[in-house]
Amino acid sequence: MPPTRPSKKQSDQDSFLSVDIGGTNVTCGLVSRGGAVLATDIFPRAKGGDGPDELIGTIVGRFKKLWAAADEAHRPTAVAIGAPGWIKPKEGVVVNAPNLAGWVDVPITQIMSQALGLPAMLENDSNLYALGEWLAGAGRGSDNQITVTLGTGVGAGLILNGQLWSGSFTSAAEIGHIPLGPAHRVKCGCGRIGCLETVASATAMARMAREWLDSGRETLYADSAEGLNAQVLAELAEKGDAMSIHVFREVGVALGQILSGVFNLLSLERAVLGGGGAGAFQFIKDPLLEYLETRLVTAKIHEIQVVKGTLGTNAPLVGAAVLLTAGGY
Amino acid sequence: MPPTRPSKKQSDQDSFLSVDIGGTNVTCGLVSRGGAVLATDIFPRAKGGDGPDELIGTIVGRFKKLWAAADEAHRPTAVAIGAPGWIKPKEGVVVNAPNLAGWVDVPITQIMSQALGLPAMLENDSNLYALGEWLAGAGRGSDNQITVTLGTGVGAGLILNGQLWSGSFTSAAEIGHIPLGPAHRVKCGCGRIGCLETVASATAMARMAREWLDSGRETLYADSAEGLNAQVLAELAEKGDAMSIHVFREVGVALGQILSGVFNLLSLERAVLGGGGAGAFQFIKDPLLEYLETRLVTAKIHEIQVVKGTLGTNAPLVGAAVLLTAGGY
Repeated sequence: MPPTRPSKKQSDQDSFLSVDIGGTNVTCGLVSRGGAVLATDIFPRAKGGDGPDELIGTIVGRFKKLWAAADEAHRPTAVAIGAPGWIKPKEGVVVNAPNLAGWVDVPITQIMSQALGLPAMLENDSNLYALGEWLAGAGRGSDNQITVTLGTGVGAGLILNGQLWSGSFTSAAEIGHIPLGPAHRVKCGCGRIGCLETVASATAMARMAREWLDSGRETLYADSAEGLNAQVLAELAEKGDAMSIHVFREVGVALGQILSGVFNLLSLERAVLGGGGAGAFQFIKDPLLEYLETRLVTAKIHEIQVVKGTLGTNAPLVGAAVLLTAGGY
Repeated sequence: MPPTRPSKKQSDQDSFLSVDIGGTNVTCGLVSRGGAVLATDIFPRAKGGDGPDELIGTIVGRFKKLWAAADEAHRPTAVAIGAPGWIKPKEGVVVNAPNLAGWVDVPITQIMSQALGLPAMLENDSNLYALGEWLAGAGRGSDNQITVTLGTGVGAGLILNGQLWSGSFTSAAEIGHIPLGPAHRVKCGCGRIGCLETVASATAMARMAREWLDSGRETLYADSAEGLNAQVLAELAEKGDAMSIHVFREVGVALGQILSGVFNLLSLERAVLGGGGAGAFQFIKDPLLEYLETRLVTAKIHEIQVVKGTLGTNAPLVGAAVLLTAGGY
């Protein structure tokens, strides 16, 4: 059933448990039907990989604590699970995911449902993120939009006519592996060459900065324990660092190229950028919009918006409320 | 109102007038509600440009003849107009079109409606083409698909959940001007650089063949009155001509690049290729599928289809039946 905005008839006292299984951290939360985050519990993934039994067990334990701490009025009635990689939402199965080593054909909704005695639903993590921004974040007020998450990889979720778009197969909005064309030769984690992810992910930002450093070009960056990441680069860009500004320009142009296609194909009105890499939004936005302006056919540049997500790691938790309401819970 | 498949309750004896205003020819027709083409009348556009008054007058005259020749049971009840370029379907206005020189803000549905005493609707020509293939051609049986027309330019129409997708603004599925990336430097008719149209249109096919000739490379082509066009190239390719095979490979790879993005973004199950350039489908298909196979994330290559349109110049006429039925006529 396609998600729809929660009806006002339903009590906002209803609440849901929600988990977003990321590559580094796992975010558990309790959210109201209206999308208010009532409590969160974030913990790091185990080093060396955590198999399904171990990780699901940990999540269930954290959920029970959130549940116990919830007041009478906010007893959870269902569970939403956001997972990366190849999943089958209808069947509730994680088929395979690069960030979930050792997870093959795991019926996660069934396991979680039995352990907690609550119905459970599974959805792609980027789709939950997009639903969250649409319900209560930077996506409010627009029913034709894409949310792009710049993290370890590049994910996306598509809202068309106010509903999450799923298409004919088990996943849609897979923009991270759209090719940037023959001039792009960097090998992607997926094994292909020149995917959007090889330029626009937070991982790629660090790689491009490293290439700049290795070439001996000038930069304000001094090696430190923090290392090179999107956050460090954003701070350097604010100080006018040429390396960081170069990196974010590359990101903006690559996103502009792919998003110009998405806007022209679907006649969208908004793109929301989220994930860790969007911390540098102010430096990515200008080259992205400059590119978009030259390529937009379906609208004038002032008729569309490219905005930064406002919910951060809470976005998929909020999205859970839309998913579960649409699922009849 | 979004188009839907004509209901079986409605009489298939109902009929509609339909016109597709192309760059070279104008196709008028009488179609049944079920999509059967009852009569057609194709005539060339006037050399040196035909203004709105002249061309609309000619179309009205042709329509009256089709109407007069229709038997009692097939009296037309509404008119559909397919036009290229920038149009406003809801307002029934052709705003501006490269192929309709001198047409600015022409309220074509109002003019046509008054002249014929029938209600009229306007739609993008590629969208009508896509609706036709979906109703009665190569798009039958699939409700998530794109139809791409390879003609003077590259157009497309998108069917999502069995309905024509229009998006937030006046046009969608504008894939002809999606950029192929920084390695592509040919200037497009639109003024931009490296649009899909600079490689995949029938116009581009002729240009690439000319470049091959000018470089003195071997070919079976001998200059003739026919000139270099997609049809001539397709005939040469059947004889093993290296030039033609090279051209169609370039077309297939470029389409593969852009369509891989479209399939992955929307999780589509089918792409239909139509228009004059699709006459070389058998030579375009293999490089297109080879490229798609390496890039498809949302499905396996055997789960999707890339097929040749079957309706040709009748496609937009057939699409008119879907448009007008959905419009309540």
